[in-house]
Amino acid sequence: MTDFAQGAWTASLTPLNADLSIDLEAYLEHLRWLLDAGSAGVAALGTTGEANSFSVAERLEVIGALAKSGAPRERLVIGVGCCAAPDTITLTRAVLDAGYSNVLMLPPFYYKNVSDEGIYRAYAHVIESVGDACLRVLVYDFPQMTGVKIGAALLARLASAFKGIVIGVKNSSGDWAAIETTIAELPGFLVFAGSERFLLTTLRAGGPGCISATANVTVRALAALAQDWQTPDAEARQAAITNTRLMLEQLPAIPALKEIMALATGRPSWRRLRPPLVNLAQDDAARLLAQAHEAGLIEAVRCA
Amino acid sequence: MTDFAQGAWTASLTPLNADLSIDLEAYLEHLRWLLDAGSAGVAALGTTGEANSFSVAERLEVIGALAKSGAPRERLVIGVGCCAAPDTITLTRAVLDAGYSNVLMLPPFYYKNVSDEGIYRAYAHVIESVGDACLRVLVYDFPQMTGVKIGAALLARLASAFKGIVIGVKNSSGDWAAIETTIAELPGFLVFAGSERFLLTTLRAGGPGCISATANVTVRALAALAQDWQTPDAEARQAAITNTRLMLEQLPAIPALKEIMALATGRPSWRRLRPPLVNLAQDDAARLLAQAHEAGLIEAVRCA
Repeated sequence: MTDFAQGAWTASLTPLNADLSIDLEAYLEHLRWLLDAGSAGVAALGTTGEANSFSVAERLEVIGALAKSGAPRERLVIGVGCCAAPDTITLTRAVLDAGYSNVLMLPPFYYKNVSDEGIYRAYAHVIESVGDACLRVLVYDFPQMTGVKIGAALLARLASAFKGIVIGVKNSSGDWAAIETTIAELPGFLVFAGSERFLLTTLRAGGPGCISATANVTVRALAALAQDWQTPDAEARQAAITNTRLMLEQLPAIPALKEIMALATGRPSWRRLRPPLVNLAQDDAARLLAQAHEAGLIEAVRCA
Repeated sequence: MTDFAQGAWTASLTPLNADLSIDLEAYLEHLRWLLDAGSAGVAALGTTGEANSFSVAERLEVIGALAKSGAPRERLVIGVGCCAAPDTITLTRAVLDAGYSNVLMLPPFYYKNVSDEGIYRAYAHVIESVGDACLRVLVYDFPQMTGVKIGAALLARLASAFKGIVIGVKNSSGDWAAIETTIAELPGFLVFAGSERFLLTTLRAGGPGCISATANVTVRALAALAQDWQTPDAEARQAAITNTRLMLEQLPAIPALKEIMALATGRPSWRRLRPPLVNLAQDDAARLLAQAHEAGLIEAVRCA
């Protein structure tokens, strides 16, 4: 059995109630919608999901809700990486207790210029403390947010020390050369690109796919490409997908995607953000929504 | 009454037991020693104290121990800033419940390129949620760790919106021009330099002093300069202090300081670090300890 479904995954947004608590009902509805619409899987509580803006108790609530979601084990990965090892351990155990096994694990991200040895020990400490052979760890490499770079050598060391447990990486560096190198150097290791800009190239290079924030609103187009990536029109599909991505990248990604979700679903909880994230300026939002309309994104979400 | 004692503060290291839990006994002993040795005050649970490597529950334990320390209110500031606002709120309330009022508050530090508006709202949300007029917030500006820059305009906005509550900043940017500008532009606002390299210049510019990691092992020299900064030999004292700092800065600061503390006190709990921090390589440690001996640092700690 595969641990991770292959294809285009969605890094789920997190809808918020007026008091900025998590709107679990809308959250689970969105999860089901994404899986039904063809998302290979859903990454819950990642960067796009504002995970680090929630306390451990709040994240445990989400994990509890996911436990009842019925999402297949190989189509869900849950973000657990915190600065403090005890928190990462608590969340990882909760994922396993919930009947899931896939976790997306950031390195501790407060200190900068840390050594490979230090990052290795941080992962080792958590994995050994959890001590469960069912655990499947996708290392979360996002140097722009963490200030911590995780190279192929460190991944190889982790994969070898924790065989069958550290089984892949989400590379959100935006650096195609790094993704390509990791796929080439670590056969069998699951290297997910952190952006659908690299979906086709990743699949062609032998990678499993991508995990993308944009997929919250472009899930069908991404699913279609992941399905038909060996057909003649794959390049054209990728070009259209990349265009949409570049359009959305003109603005801060999480507020922009939440704006589109709010308009498409009519639910105000999609627009809310926890500080330090803030909503788009009104004119930026208006321009974005006009472009999103033109690209058919809002209809795509609304008619799902 | 002054909220913050003026002079050279120490950003306390955190000693760890063999299981990497906090050695509270050694911690409180060190706190008392620092205050007796002339540290103007102690910053507990900051960057030097590995605060973000501890869970909220562990940090609450430290705050509970500090509550019984007898340290004067104006000589203690406790780090409370987390990525998740509920955690920052929990810790801030605990500080107030412990009978203290001074907190050192990092901005949420996971997301980068966030707006001043977003940082403002993050602080405002915490302060309004805590809702206690006794609270005194020292904003913690450490862009090298947080990836978040907090300029004088944002500090002015916070100081004006939360008058008497947001009363100062610890500027750990290492940028003297930024420290000088903030002192000049915000009269009455307490601008602590994050390094004793700027102790004399900060005092001369009208600032309250510095909060320094090095002070864990150089407390007496720093206290003497803070006391005698208007005497003719102040420049020479500052030059000697700066030399020691530059010597220590050749190596990662926290492991280096813990190495010195361990040798000087004979307590192994001073050497331990939580990942991602790691101990110095053996030859680096040996060279450091020889230099520290020569500079009289180890004797200074041992004979306190």
